[in-house]
Parts: sequence; structure tokens; C-alpha cells
Amino acid sequence: MATVYFDHAAAAPLLPEAKEAMLPLLSAEFGNPSSLHRFGEKPRQALETAREQVARLVNCRPEDITFTASGSESNNLAVKGLAWSRKDKGNHIVVSAIEHVSVLEPVRTLAKLGFDFTEVPVDREGMVHPDQLAAAIRPETILVSVMHANNEVGTIQNTMELSRIAREHKVPFHSDGTAAVGRLPVDVAELGVDAYSFPAQSVYGPKGAAALYLKRGARVQSLVEGGVQERNRRAGTEDVAAIAGFGKAAEITGTRLVEWSQNMTRLARRIAEELPARLDHVILTGSLTHRVPGQVSMCVEFVEGESMLLFLDDEGIAAASGSSCTAKTLKASHVLLAMGLPHALAQSSLVLTLGKDNTDADVDHFLDKLPPIVKRLRQMSPLYAKFQKGQDPYAARTGESCEDDNHSEGKS
Amino acid sequence: MATVYFDHAAAAPLLPEAKEAMLPLLSAEFGNPSSLHRFGEKPRQALETAREQVARLVNCRPEDITFTASGSESNNLAVKGLAWSRKDKGNHIVVSAIEHVSVLEPVRTLAKLGFDFTEVPVDREGMVHPDQLAAAIRPETILVSVMHANNEVGTIQNTMELSRIAREHKVPFHSDGTAAVGRLPVDVAELGVDAYSFPAQSVYGPKGAAALYLKRGARVQSLVEGGVQERNRRAGTEDVAAIAGFGKAAEITGTRLVEWSQNMTRLARRIAEELPARLDHVILTGSLTHRVPGQVSMCVEFVEGESMLLFLDDEGIAAASGSSCTAKTLKASHVLLAMGLPHALAQSSLVLTLGKDNTDADVDHFLDKLPPIVKRLRQMSPLYAKFQKGQDPYAARTGESCEDDNHSEGKS
Repeated sequence: MATVYFDHAAAAPLLPEAKEAMLPLLSAEFGNPSSLHRFGEKPRQALETAREQVARLVNCRPEDITFTASGSESNNLAVKGLAWSRKDKGNHIVVSAIEHVSVLEPVRTLAKLGFDFTEVPVDREGMVHPDQLAAAIRPETILVSVMHANNEVGTIQNTMELSRIAREHKVPFHSDGTAAVGRLPVDVAELGVDAYSFPAQSVYGPKGAAALYLKRGARVQSLVEGGVQERNRRAGTEDVAAIAGFGKAAEITGTRLVEWSQNMTRLARRIAEELPARLDHVILTGSLTHRVPGQVSMCVEFVEGESMLLFLDDEGIAAASGSSCTAKTLKASHVLLAMGLPHALAQSSLVLTLGKDNTDADVDHFLDKLPPIVKRLRQMSPLYAKFQKGQDPYAARTGESCEDDNHSEGKS
Repeated sequence: MATVYFDHAAAAPLLPEAKEAMLPLLSAEFGNPSSLHRFGEKPRQALETAREQVARLVNCRPEDITFTASGSESNNLAVKGLAWSRKDKGNHIVVSAIEHVSVLEPVRTLAKLGFDFTEVPVDREGMVHPDQLAAAIRPETILVSVMHANNEVGTIQNTMELSRIAREHKVPFHSDGTAAVGRLPVDVAELGVDAYSFPAQSVYGPKGAAALYLKRGARVQSLVEGGVQERNRRAGTEDVAAIAGFGKAAEITGTRLVEWSQNMTRLARRIAEELPARLDHVILTGSLTHRVPGQVSMCVEFVEGESMLLFLDDEGIAAASGSSCTAKTLKASHVLLAMGLPHALAQSSLVLTLGKDNTDADVDHFLDKLPPIVKRLRQMSPLYAKFQKGQDPYAARTGESCEDDNHSEGKS
């Protein structure tokens, strides 16, 4: 059966060249890059080559890149590391309401340890308004974290403007670049950010490697402490193979980015334009204009996201309903709720993240298969039955929405 | 030129079978184990197979294993995670003075955040005495962390007795098993530990994967927070390839351990017995009786450890002078200082960690090459000149020793 992979935000196939770069480090070049003898040389060189390649991708100095094991770890290191290292200057953190859980959870934990935070709201398209960010900053604010692009709805923030506001208030600005890197050209100097997180998977690199850019002079309290690796910012023997794969993937993706993105943009636009003609009650989510290439997000009214995923899977189509990090919780997306969608609508989320290898045939297959799946699911849907009787299918569930939206309790 | 690799504590070659287990996950099986569609299935199975394999190695339930990216991360998660989760019960932590820096640094950071700690001393062989551990425990003690075996001097602690004392005081006991796993049969139930850390590299697995065993019911505050991976204990997409390699390596090493260890023990004994006959002023460090297989540690008087490493490297021999995590700092080993060695003697440390593939020919090569290197270095040594004049070469440097031994300031 044909398989169509539309879930690149969850996992991306490894570039063959990146795999090739990893292999020697998984055999003869197995040494520890910290070793003073010859077995340390090749791994050390591999590490520094990768650091240059990754730095070039986002236009910074190699020494500004700290390697970690995941985008989540980079986000944790940025948020907790910057907050703890600045605790003498204040205790208030500003984040957007649609950050990834690896930004939100650290902030909530810090709030239990004497810090305070404000979640800046977003509009219906998932945009943070500069004036609302400015209003959230207090004299005791020590960190602002607003993602570059959202992983679920694809909305790109006006990061230059938001970072400018933080800079005016002399507050460091962190941006989670997971959904932006590999899809947009990224220049951390131009963006004006002090810290920027992204995983190797964003550039078709391996799992197990990610980067945190830290502007010259930025200080972070380490999460993983001990040895002096990564300029004292992240202890532990480096996963040299994964990092070498990351470097190679960054180099290749950097050169192919524009071409790949054009194709992904075209295919994503086909879905966004052609699907509504074949299926009613589809609501595209996120910004239509400030949007990462290859990302299509929608609510398919009156059906549950997870049900769609399972039926799509039967047709060989891999998609998502939100962030893979919380897929197993089956909760409504906090991103869609923050954008003001009713709870039941948020649970009908379908997220497609295309990749460099997707084709028109993939789009055709999806456009053929989704409508009959949805029609079948709607026949079993109590919400759809309500709607057909002329009732408001979302009215009754407002209470539930509030409960699930309570971010301060447990994981979301 | 023949190469002799005697630095398995820094990095171990990857078992070919472990590499084979990784490869599919670096190509067709690239999915995210959290994904609900078919691309998640194989990675999810690989993760659970590895969890079973690793659990079997140390005799625990699969669900007691949390995967991290390094032994250092496992140690940090154990120490900071257990301390923060128990902060309502007390604020005092007990560690041995010879712990790895990835235990000591977290404890020192916690000490800046309202916690307190005691370093239990060790004797000349690096042994923690049970009565000294008992004396260090206070009513407000919430964690004891004493490593199973020391990575620099190979001394194995009486972990069963030490954990019993902690249990008597109702204090959780963590043990860093990095230097023990893969060399000794390890049974966490028999050891009586509540938490136990070890990296994949200890069993000839890849970099980028490690485990933290947590006894049923043990609660830890996560370091990397966000998604619900690893039963909410460690967020971030799992490095499935590295973990699969870890699992396979654990399985194979578990079955070959006794055979490999016998060979390593024999070869290490040859070095310990034959070297003093060829080279004078060699002081073997650590316990001769409670010692991990394949580990030889010594002070070669009147020469600097790093100089020996460089000359040994020229002869194709890879060795270490202490922990690879701090190799680049060129500081005297805090382990040897804690064992009561003078500073100048501690700087003459040479650590050999043998592996399963070392041979008698490797030992012969080492025994041939080290003595002339040392003789040449001693001719340039001011300490040796002093000694030859009948002066005490170590007396003058006591002050320096105290300064460097000040653990509470900065990285060591």
C-alpha cells in the first residue's frame, strides 16, 4: 500500500548523507572527544565541524551553539538556565500561551520555586501582539520566551518586533525555533534573539541531537552538570555520532531549503484550497499569511482528531492531531484553546506537516481518502447530530473547556 | 603502528550487534514512538524491547528504567530529581568525597539553593566506611549518593551495607553504577538501592543513551520537562536508535560478562604485578581486593599524568589520567586527594581501563613502553631532582593541594 507521510513535525527521515556522517563514529572513531590521546581526535573534529555547520545554518559563531539531546532539552536549558542565572535580578517570566510544553512545563515548575509568570494571549490566528507582550513585561521580568513558529498551527510570530520590545526592556528573549528551522531561513542576529532552540530533526538530522544558540555573553545555569563539556553549559559525554549527523543535515538543508520549501508550500496550498471543495465544515487554523511552508492545520468539525488519525493510518496516511509530545494524553490542544476555539472543536484538530519528499500524488491520495473517512465518522458523531438538528454543537461543552484549559495543574 | 586501547572508561567501542540494531531506526523506522500511526510502531517496539533488555541486565522491571542521554544526565536526574521531590522532608544530602563530578556538581548547586550536604570521607583505598556514612546522616537527610565503583581507582564500595544504613534511616540511596555495570554482575534488588545510574557505554553500547533505575514508588522532579515520554520522568523525543543499541549491548554484555571480566582481570593483574618489577616508584591506587575487573590505577611518582599520556599516545597506547569529563581541566584528581594523596602525587595519576578485546600482546606493549617514557620524563622532573637530593618532593606543595581541594568553589 502507498504510504503518505505527513507528520514531519513528529519525526523526519534522516538524510542519507547525515547517516553516512554518523557511521564512522559508530565504529572506528568511537573515542571520547575529551580524551587527550589520538582516539579523541576524530570525534573532537567531528564535533567542531558539526558546530560550524549548525552555526552557519542560523548565522552565529560556532561557540554560540550548545549541543543538547532534544529540542525539549534545549527549551528547558534556555528557560530554566536563563531564569536561574538571573534570579538575583527578578523572578518574572513572560511566555506566550501557545508555547510547546517543553517551555510551559519548566515555567510552571519555576512558579512553584519562587518565580512568577504571565502567559501572553494570542489572537484567533495564533499571533502574539507586540503591545500585549509589552504590557506583560514588568520591572522584575527576567525572561521572555515566544516561539518563532507554532508546531501545531504553523503561525510565524513577528519575532524581530517581539525581541525588540524585550530588548527595550533589557530582558533576554528566547525563541523556540523547532517548527521554523529547516522550513524558513533563520538568522538569529537578524531575529534579535538571545537564545534559540532547535532539534536536528528539523533539518532531517537524527534524533538525539539538538542545539541551543546563546548570544555572546548569555549565561545559563546548567541542567546537566558535571564535566566541562560544551563550555561548561551541558555536562556529559557528547553523542558525537548524532551531532555529526546533525551538522551534515544542517549543511545540506541549508543549501536546499528554498527549493524544498517552495515545493512544500505549493503542496500545502493545494490541500488548503482543494480540501474545502471536497469536504464541508473544515476550518483552517493558524495564519494563512504568516505560515511555515508545508504546514496545514485544520479543525474537521464534529469528528475527533484521533479517530481521523486511525482511519487515515488504515489508508497509509500518517498525520497528527497536535504535538507528538502529548499525543498519548489525548487532550485537546492548549494551542487551539488559547486561540479561542471551543473545546470540542479543538479536539477535531488535524495537523499535516509535509516534508521535502512529498509529492502531488501524496496530496491526491490524502484528498481522496479524508472526505469519506470524515463522512463515516460524522454519521457516528453526537455533535454532528446536534448540528443537524439546528443546535449549537459547541455550546454545551464550555465548562469542560475551562477545566481542561487549567494549565497550572499537572501536565497538559 | 599497533594501537592499544586502555581507556574504556572514557569511551568503549560499539558492539557490532548493537550497531546493527540501530541501523533500521536510522533509515526506514524513523518514526516518533509517540505517534499514533504506523510509523510509530517499530520505534515504540524498539524502545520497549530495549527497556526489557536493560532491565534484565540489572534485574529490575522494565518500567523502573528511565532512559536519558548520558550517565551524567542519569546522575543529575537522580540527585536533583530526588532532592527536589523530597524538599518538604528535609534539605540535607550525603555523598562520598569521591563521587563523579556529575554527582558532586549538582549537589553543590543545590547547596546554593537552600540545600546542605556532607561529603563522607574515604580511606586510603577509596572505601567509604559504613560507620562514617551512618554518622553523616541527620534527621533532615533526604538523599544518600555513593557510587558503586569508582571510575578512577576502581574501588568497589560495600553497597549492600551502605544502602542498608540509608534504609535504616529511611533515606533513599542512589548509586552511580557507571564503572561497575558491564564489569560486575549487578542486581539492583540485591544491592538494595533506590536509584542506580549507568550509561550504554558501560556495556559497549552507543553514546547518547543511559539509564536511571528508580525503585517502584520513587518520585523524581524531572530535569527535562514537557511531554509525557518516559512515564513523565524525562521529556523529549527518545533517541530510539541509541536506546535500541543500548538494549542490544546490554543483552550481549549480560551473557558474556563473566568470561570478559575474567580475561580483563587476568590482564590487569599482569600489569599490576609486572610493572613494579620494571619501573620503580609506582604506587598502585585503590583497593587491591575490592576492585572492578580490568582496572589498573597508579601514581607514577615524579611525572605528570598528562605528559605520560602524550608519550604513551606516541607509542600507540591510549590511557587516561583521571575522569574524561574533566581531562581538559588538567587538575589533580579530587578522588586521589580525598584518598589522602599529596597534590603532586595525585597529578602523577595513570588510569588504565581495559576492555573485552584487550590481549596479552597489549599488556606486553604497555609494559615495554611505559618504563622508558617515565625514565625520560623523570630526567626533566624537578620533583625527581628533589627526591634524588634526599628532600621530600611532596612537602612543599601542601598549600597548593588545599587550594585545589576546595570543592565548594566552581567546577573541579
